[in-house]
Amino acid sequence: MKTLEGAAIATGGTRRRITVSTLAEASFLADGGWDDILYAVPLTPDKMKDVMALHARLESFTVMVDHPAQVEALLGLLPGRVAPDKPLRVVVGVDCGYHRDGCDPTDPSSVELVRTLTRAQLTAMAGVYTHAGHSYDVPDVATVEAIAAAERDVIVGFAGTLRAAGLAVPSVGVGSTPTCSNPPAHLTGVDEMHPGNYMYYDATQLSLGSCTLDDIAVRVLTRVVGHYPKSNTLLIDCGWTGASAQGKESGYGCLPKTPELTIANLKQECGEVTSADGAPIDYARYPIGSFLEIAPYHSCASTHQHGHVHVLETAASREVSEVWRICKGW
Amino acid sequence: MKTLEGAAIATGGTRRRITVSTLAEASFLADGGWDDILYAVPLTPDKMKDVMALHARLESFTVMVDHPAQVEALLGLLPGRVAPDKPLRVVVGVDCGYHRDGCDPTDPSSVELVRTLTRAQLTAMAGVYTHAGHSYDVPDVATVEAIAAAERDVIVGFAGTLRAAGLAVPSVGVGSTPTCSNPPAHLTGVDEMHPGNYMYYDATQLSLGSCTLDDIAVRVLTRVVGHYPKSNTLLIDCGWTGASAQGKESGYGCLPKTPELTIANLKQECGEVTSADGAPIDYARYPIGSFLEIAPYHSCASTHQHGHVHVLETAASREVSEVWRICKGW
Repeated sequence: MKTLEGAAIATGGTRRRITVSTLAEASFLADGGWDDILYAVPLTPDKMKDVMALHARLESFTVMVDHPAQVEALLGLLPGRVAPDKPLRVVVGVDCGYHRDGCDPTDPSSVELVRTLTRAQLTAMAGVYTHAGHSYDVPDVATVEAIAAAERDVIVGFAGTLRAAGLAVPSVGVGSTPTCSNPPAHLTGVDEMHPGNYMYYDATQLSLGSCTLDDIAVRVLTRVVGHYPKSNTLLIDCGWTGASAQGKESGYGCLPKTPELTIANLKQECGEVTSADGAPIDYARYPIGSFLEIAPYHSCASTHQHGHVHVLETAASREVSEVWRICKGW
Repeated sequence: MKTLEGAAIATGGTRRRITVSTLAEASFLADGGWDDILYAVPLTPDKMKDVMALHARLESFTVMVDHPAQVEALLGLLPGRVAPDKPLRVVVGVDCGYHRDGCDPTDPSSVELVRTLTRAQLTAMAGVYTHAGHSYDVPDVATVEAIAAAERDVIVGFAGTLRAAGLAVPSVGVGSTPTCSNPPAHLTGVDEMHPGNYMYYDATQLSLGSCTLDDIAVRVLTRVVGHYPKSNTLLIDCGWTGASAQGKESGYGCLPKTPELTIANLKQECGEVTSADGAPIDYARYPIGSFLEIAPYHSCASTHQHGHVHVLETAASREVSEVWRICKGW
């Protein structure tokens, strides 16, 4: 979660129980009064200094592992750094079919990983965690729901295996914006969900059936700076530095107020817009200097290009009511 | 040019005669002592406040136009803002075949555009400018050179047309990193070149024949954070927030020190690396926590993801000798 204000909405004002993907975010949120933070990327020894600082200052800071080499390195570094009465909380990442990371829940070594963490004096086994990122590459909502059901079944099944082996599993977590937006029929056995993109949604989630156009809460605002009737294009002063280069194949998102237009290309500081259906552009409708609004292909990537989010009270407003700082770096 | 230190190298220490693509860059360079700055994006009325501030503080600040509507808006705004003894310098952008922007050099209205700027009391016609961006989408160096020759011929030809019409053309500019790296046989009639990417080069320029691997002066440093033999992948703690998502089709760049590896996927804060030839990865060579170096697909995009450049004295060094701040925003 890259803004304090967004994180406050996501946690219902509790300022607890939030997942991050960088240690910079963890510190940013801790500075903002958050606690109970999970850093959900496999932990390596080089990050121990920052991890120890967060462990010391927070009531609950949790890291993730998915491989014996990470656990071995971690257990070698903890003596002298962590007190036995405040062990380091560790969740185990599990692969539910995405195959990006996570231990293999069908491999006996994964049970041994949990056993090692459970037995070690200086770690507290905090739960199991999975992320169904493969829900982004599907043709329809039914497939998203099937992946969501499989995500649940894999992680709840693995928790059952661990419990049958006498190992405690305090928390079972699932999550990805598609599978949380179109969840399975039940979530029995699941304790928490940790999607992120749903805070803004975007054109990708719209196409996945995760949201409606009205649910997309972020826009990149740009201006028309040139007219080129010969190539049937407009030039805008937004390039990939403003909207990111993601979504090239599908127009870099959509233009909700001018759906007759589409982005043909984004360069560094400018972009080419053409008509969606190939018809000649009526240039009088888009004077030089006028605004166009982009609903991004990937809101995470577009907002990352900026240092701040300018918040409007209503979609029609041009008055900025709040400015949210975006956490940068690592 | 996004760093003062890079700009100092590019201008041979003169701190004059530099091209920018945002007004934020122009102010950043002006703050750093630069003068004679060209803002090479079509100018629209909304940017006049910043343009006037730069015009006032600099000896020479130049804007670009390529359409009569921009000129009309500009001429309407200048009275009272610009003194007749220091008119606003304006270059005319010309399309040399890229078809992103620039006026059509074969259209008589383009001559009229220059005539209007020449006759106006408050503007000084400063020259013609083109950018052969289509040199990025070519199969070989011979095609780059052909585009470079055409770029020259179009802009020098248009300057000739203007001069034949009695209009002064103080400067004739060309440029793109491919056409400047593989220039045509001669550049007669050309006064300046304005490439940018050549400062760092990258894997794209390598594939275009603009540079060698050793010429690529920028790396994104990342660490191995996970081993996944079942999918024959490594996880790295660099995602598109660290390297940009550009170049997905071709491995997001290359890994010069470990060419047997390739990036299969970049997610927000992590990436999947696999073997380049599909052979099983020898994981012992890439321990968890060890470094990998990425030579980016597009150095402009990768560096834009960061706030600073950490400069090493030599490629083998790990000691940071300088930290260059990157200009952000617009």
